[in-house]
Amino acid sequence: MSKNERKKIILEVYFDNSSTTKPLEEVINEVTFGMKEFYGNPSSLHNLGLKSEKKLKECREVLAKTINAAENEIHFNSGGSEGNNFILKGLLKSGSHIITTPFEHASILNTIKKLEENNIKVTLLRVDEEGKIDLNHLRDAITKETVLISIMHVNNEIGVIQDLDDISKIIRETSSRAKFHVDAVQSYGKIPIDVKKLNIDFLTTSAHKIHGPKGVGFIYVKKPNALVSLIEGGAQEFGFRAGTQNVPGIMGMSLAGKIANENMKDNYDKVLKIKEKFIEKLKNIPNIRINSLLNDSFSPYILNVSFIGVRGEVLLHYLEEAGIYVSTGSACSSKERERIGGSYVLKSLGLSKDEIAGGIRFSFSDDNKEEEVNYVIEILEKGLKFLRRIKK
Amino acid sequence: MSKNERKKIILEVYFDNSSTTKPLEEVINEVTFGMKEFYGNPSSLHNLGLKSEKKLKECREVLAKTINAAENEIHFNSGGSEGNNFILKGLLKSGSHIITTPFEHASILNTIKKLEENNIKVTLLRVDEEGKIDLNHLRDAITKETVLISIMHVNNEIGVIQDLDDISKIIRETSSRAKFHVDAVQSYGKIPIDVKKLNIDFLTTSAHKIHGPKGVGFIYVKKPNALVSLIEGGAQEFGFRAGTQNVPGIMGMSLAGKIANENMKDNYDKVLKIKEKFIEKLKNIPNIRINSLLNDSFSPYILNVSFIGVRGEVLLHYLEEAGIYVSTGSACSSKERERIGGSYVLKSLGLSKDEIAGGIRFSFSDDNKEEEVNYVIEILEKGLKFLRRIKK
Ligand SMILES: Cc1ncc(COP(=O)(O)O)c(C=O)c1O
Ligand SMILES: Cc1ncc(COP(=O)(O)O)c(C=O)c1O
Repeated sequence: MSKNERKKIILEVYFDNSSTTKPLEEVINEVTFGMKEFYGNPSSLHNLGLKSEKKLKECREVLAKTINAAENEIHFNSGGSEGNNFILKGLLKSGSHIITTPFEHASILNTIKKLEENNIKVTLLRVDEEGKIDLNHLRDAITKETVLISIMHVNNEIGVIQDLDDISKIIRETSSRAKFHVDAVQSYGKIPIDVKKLNIDFLTTSAHKIHGPKGVGFIYVKKPNALVSLIEGGAQEFGFRAGTQNVPGIMGMSLAGKIANENMKDNYDKVLKIKEKFIEKLKNIPNIRINSLLNDSFSPYILNVSFIGVRGEVLLHYLEEAGIYVSTGSACSSKERERIGGSYVLKSLGLSKDEIAGGIRFSFSDDNKEEEVNYVIEILEKGLKFLRRIKK
Repeated sequence: MSKNERKKIILEVYFDNSSTTKPLEEVINEVTFGMKEFYGNPSSLHNLGLKSEKKLKECREVLAKTINAAENEIHFNSGGSEGNNFILKGLLKSGSHIITTPFEHASILNTIKKLEENNIKVTLLRVDEEGKIDLNHLRDAITKETVLISIMHVNNEIGVIQDLDDISKIIRETSSRAKFHVDAVQSYGKIPIDVKKLNIDFLTTSAHKIHGPKGVGFIYVKKPNALVSLIEGGAQEFGFRAGTQNVPGIMGMSLAGKIANENMKDNYDKVLKIKEKFIEKLKNIPNIRINSLLNDSFSPYILNVSFIGVRGEVLLHYLEEAGIYVSTGSACSSKERERIGGSYVLKSLGLSKDEIAGGIRFSFSDDNKEEEVNYVIEILEKGLKFLRRIKK
């Protein structure tokens, strides 16, 4: 595209909602309100402190309800990465065995890499080419040493949904010791989660993925599970996580969680239509692989497509110049990307080199509109013609 | 006080600013602005991501300037407790020796307690009855195994200031290996800090202590020091701290840090006058010990007083009913408090049981007014008469 064309952005389309979302107006107002009215330190013994402490409890109750937990099972922290680190590091000791998948988020996989130096044993489950984990492998992998099974609910790059119910049953049938952790950062507020029904021990969430503020998250810790703290100091968060709580941020998360859960069905239907339409229109584009199918095993919020014959990064920047914002996968693991020429998630599905190199993730939210798909497809078609030609 | 009296709050006086501060109006607006305009994920490759990344860099530059550091030596995190944990856990290994004081914040002392289980050796420096550390003890304590000297700049309960310059010189004269960490949570933005001149390796700060947002802080990490991450995952914060950055919160911290540093002298003079007046008026109250002297060795922001013959908690609630908010010390270590009948900081000074039990911390900010002291003294006098009488 020429410099001149570059300026003519007809429409801005934000299809990178799995990376982060725009905070809701109501959430922004709530955080602002919190900074004005609830600045007291919840640990202070006076009224202003108690006022903040009461508000914190309210927020815990609101969020607990969204996953069928108890108020004192909700622990606030700074987001998904901290949550995942806390649970893994807080539970695993030398000699422990953990079972997980090869395409977890970096905050799981890199933490495990570090823990392996401390003699922690890891099994990465086999996944099929759609991304479903092999349940027989799970059953076989569980041993007496297995302390934790950590499985992401929705994969952040391709949107595959794991069957938590089946997984949980297998764990309970096979071990009385192993705990079940779910990274729900991409599913919380989008797909129903009932921690009691699913017999989940630990669950990680992050506010900024559901139109909440950045730098806030909560983990669910089933009572009476105890974890070693990641951040020690004061007795905040039931003694599990030291540091003055970010009350305004937590208020924002609580509101975002409430709104997301109240509108879950409507939002789901809305983004599903967008994904359906997108996939329908992709039929006119040759040489692609749709890595996020249109069925109940995939989140409608994510559509990952391999455009064979182009490099994802190049296509991303082409789209960007037209005002379309997407991602090539997880934003945060660039060195690994270079090493394998693309996403480790796509690689773990057994895709070809070209399929891996050409991967693009479109990720939706209820902010998006069906019409945006038309524009994106139009630019995609132009871009692919151009990029595939110059590559020859 | 009767129920009826309780409602007659003539004046609200917030003298608990070392616990947390009220965010500035400008800071609130900046965070709001950030949530609206800089919601893109700094790790995203498209324009919206780059815009956030650029803003992050700007914030690093602003904050770096306030302590004479370089932009890439500023690492953002969730606050003071995380900062302290990260530095200690990221540096100390089995066999390491650390030197610190007996009255550090809980996020240092409890982290060390945990690390001691991993064969980390600790020396707690002797402190005199005013709270100054024994520099000869420091010199003698440094050995070949000493990896870290961690000293708080201003003590959060009594406000004593340690001589970082002297400490730094002793470290550099005695060891080529030992690193110097300063917990500056209570001094940053209030007392000048020049990390280069002071030859500091690591420095911890927290935004909510200087009218910034909660849940944000930064640490200074002198190049080329490397630390093991506390939170692993993505390559954010130069690979040291994974997790989507809280750009709006960081923007708020950056503005709060800038304003605090620009007004440092004026604010200092203002709170010093408040402390002077307070101490002057305390002369009429018998049976007290002033634990925060009126000289250059103490921060003017903190005034800790032991009211002999009353329990700090009881006096705190008496004051609270009159709209005066204070603290009995660090809010977050209640179990320890119970065990020793009051603050471990006061205990480490060698105070008597009664002096420890009757400790109250008044902590100021530039929001406070001299007139507030009159009201507080009036209520204090009434309260002490009443409480000391009923105790007999
Ligand atoms: C000296 C000192 N260090 C560390 C902290 C912890 O800071 P934060 O509450 O931001 O975790 C505090 C305050 O609570 C403090 O006063
Ligand atoms: C599945 C998954 N887990 C964890 C995270 C980390 O969340 P955060 O950015 O809040 O640290 C993310 C998002 O980046 C994610 O998609």
